[in-house]
Amino acid sequence: MTESAAEIIARTASRSSAILRTVTNEQRIKALESIHEALIANKTKILEANKIDMDDARAEGSGISAPIIKRLDLQSSKDKFETMCEGVMEVARLPDPIGRITFKSQLDDGLVLERVTCPIGVLLVIFEARPEVIANITALAIKSANAVILKGGKESLHTFSAISKIVQETLSNTEIPSGAVQLIESRQDVASLLDQDQYIDLVIPRGSNELVRAIKSSTKIPVLGHADGKCAAYVAADADLEMAARVVVDSKTNYVAACNAIETLLIQRSGIDTVFPKVAAALLEAGVSLRVTPEVKEALSKAGGFPVDDSEKILDATEQDFDTEFLQFTIAVAAVNDERDAAIHINTHSSKHTDVIITSDADAAERFMASVDSSGVYWNASTRFADGFRYGFGTEVGISTSKIHARGPVGLEGLTCYQYKLRGHGQVAGDYVGSGGRQAFKHERIL
Amino acid sequence: MTESAAEIIARTASRSSAILRTVTNEQRIKALESIHEALIANKTKILEANKIDMDDARAEGSGISAPIIKRLDLQSSKDKFETMCEGVMEVARLPDPIGRITFKSQLDDGLVLERVTCPIGVLLVIFEARPEVIANITALAIKSANAVILKGGKESLHTFSAISKIVQETLSNTEIPSGAVQLIESRQDVASLLDQDQYIDLVIPRGSNELVRAIKSSTKIPVLGHADGKCAAYVAADADLEMAARVVVDSKTNYVAACNAIETLLIQRSGIDTVFPKVAAALLEAGVSLRVTPEVKEALSKAGGFPVDDSEKILDATEQDFDTEFLQFTIAVAAVNDERDAAIHINTHSSKHTDVIITSDADAAERFMASVDSSGVYWNASTRFADGFRYGFGTEVGISTSKIHARGPVGLEGLTCYQYKLRGHGQVAGDYVGSGGRQAFKHERIL
Repeated sequence: MTESAAEIIARTASRSSAILRTVTNEQRIKALESIHEALIANKTKILEANKIDMDDARAEGSGISAPIIKRLDLQSSKDKFETMCEGVMEVARLPDPIGRITFKSQLDDGLVLERVTCPIGVLLVIFEARPEVIANITALAIKSANAVILKGGKESLHTFSAISKIVQETLSNTEIPSGAVQLIESRQDVASLLDQDQYIDLVIPRGSNELVRAIKSSTKIPVLGHADGKCAAYVAADADLEMAARVVVDSKTNYVAACNAIETLLIQRSGIDTVFPKVAAALLEAGVSLRVTPEVKEALSKAGGFPVDDSEKILDATEQDFDTEFLQFTIAVAAVNDERDAAIHINTHSSKHTDVIITSDADAAERFMASVDSSGVYWNASTRFADGFRYGFGTEVGISTSKIHARGPVGLEGLTCYQYKLRGHGQVAGDYVGSGGRQAFKHERIL
Repeated sequence: MTESAAEIIARTASRSSAILRTVTNEQRIKALESIHEALIANKTKILEANKIDMDDARAEGSGISAPIIKRLDLQSSKDKFETMCEGVMEVARLPDPIGRITFKSQLDDGLVLERVTCPIGVLLVIFEARPEVIANITALAIKSANAVILKGGKESLHTFSAISKIVQETLSNTEIPSGAVQLIESRQDVASLLDQDQYIDLVIPRGSNELVRAIKSSTKIPVLGHADGKCAAYVAADADLEMAARVVVDSKTNYVAACNAIETLLIQRSGIDTVFPKVAAALLEAGVSLRVTPEVKEALSKAGGFPVDDSEKILDATEQDFDTEFLQFTIAVAAVNDERDAAIHINTHSSKHTDVIITSDADAAERFMASVDSSGVYWNASTRFADGFRYGFGTEVGISTSKIHARGPVGLEGLTCYQYKLRGHGQVAGDYVGSGGRQAFKHERIL
């Protein structure tokens, strides 16, 4: 039986992972320092490769938009390359996520159980065409002692190949096996790798909703990622007017293409004629068009001064609008009775990303935050804070809307799990109660 | 569009989950106390239902084996029913797993981020035909504030129906919505529920390897469970002879049908003529037949006194034997050079459950435990200790061989995840660096 290329890549990663597990934090830091130096030493080579990607992207008929071309660009911005290199050292300096004892118990004399953080094993990370991301993810993987198979957006292929070649050459002079970081180049390879569930432990797709959904449907490997960023703000009738307007506008417009931007606004029914007009005016002022239910429209008509007949600015909402990630200056608006109804609406329509209540009632805020099952639940703060950098976690591998393992911004910790270590002196189960013996367990918790 | 039965069940669970999230620990304890009382009060009704299951199982042509009939039986054993009821109160008395703050940081003045444990949401648990398990899982789900959809082995259907009816009736008089615990009755329903990934957050199958594999292949919902229990023991040349024999025999024979029993024995090559004959003799003595590689067979021939020609006792191993969960008095035996080779063998063939090294060398033991990527890695103790009760965790929902979220024996903690709560005073991202503003984050870690 001949082995597929995917199987060879996956098995190489798995073997490398077994070695990586035994490498110390000092050795991992040293490898990252070497990568940092090698990237700087090879700046010219990397920028040359990047120029090929840029030229291809700019070529007539490439179909690549200006904002994407800007993302690809590693050279025009004065310090983008240096920031990328410095990012590797930032990750290197983080505390070791591996080997932390999170539970310890003496089951019986001389029989001690520990729960210890450990790497997950082999990661398959699929990411967008941003050259600096490959360095980030390589650093996070090595620091967390995971082997990683990388697939980056094809528009940055030359840059990725250059960086990954330098990384592999550098690793071959360190304690980290060079098979710990492998770059694959085609979509076809990804499809075959998704079958390698005996070797690959976690898939992390960063990209379009379609990509994430397609991956989830076609693999038995666990998938960590967010398929959507459908976030909502709920404004209670007692909200501070100024604050409500500011937080809603920032959550919507600070960066409309972001996954942590809101797509839905819920208004407490009893505040529809008081707080809502102020918020609506601020949104329109910021260039946001509103898709509103009939009662919301009526409230705006009643309030007066709103362009209710300008279909560029105020439209009738469809049911579908409350399930849509607009990613543009558009927001769906509905009224609900209270924070409980808001939570039900959000739990039904949101993508479990980040949702906010704006209110001056602390009890209502706590009820809202306890009821909403999203990874982020906020009180009087913009949803745009949902981000690894703003949370102070450093580089993130992505934002998870999964409901198990890791949620929200995922950094090093999300790339670890734990294992139980039991150290004994020859104890056997047959001596203990429940398995045929008479000896009782002590179960003395040490940590 | 008419809704399917599965969708109604899943949505009911999801709605109940939203209410459950807001119920206090005291209210959850009270509900479990009520269930405990109701089970005791309805003992006769439950035992009558159990008698129907028992009669069906004993009927000619039922095809149900004696050990399974014994499992179904809730009445013959003096205190099985009482133990089941007491189990509910044991779970009720455990510390609240929900609302624990595991991280806290002040991002800026008056902008505080917390990471708080929370329920996962909706669980779908598929379990075997053991009447007491439905009470255990119901208790674990309610205590962890998760809604649960239960599907038990069909041989206990009458008993399960009786218990679940009592649970639902009882819940309707508590703060817990009765839709929080639903029993489904056919395999067909399971298949439809596996499509309800918008409502169901985690599937926990307890059962045959085939069941678990089939479920993993047919759902986008994360699956927590173990498909196999292929465990191994590695005996180093320096192992204490007596201890090696005892630990290996107990790991293999204490309960051969258990997932934490070993299926493979790895012997350090340099000890094949010294420690191994002692271990082999003890295994044969305990009724275990050995499937051995040629060099192992040669060592036994050389040692003398072994029935190397008795194919009932000593057979030639096939490659397949090292990937087999025998679940009977059979073990595959091979030689390896050292603990590193043992780890590679285990990482390649084992099911990431529990593996043990027997050695008197602490450094070799630590290297082995760091290299093996199983959920349990042991030194000089029987693999049979891998169990929630023996670990002191109380009732377990199952043993996980996943490499993310929860590993090993999974109790209450594995039924929780976390969410980030951010409490502010109207802060917006646009004021801060990185999003257009000049304000710097403080990131003062509080916890």
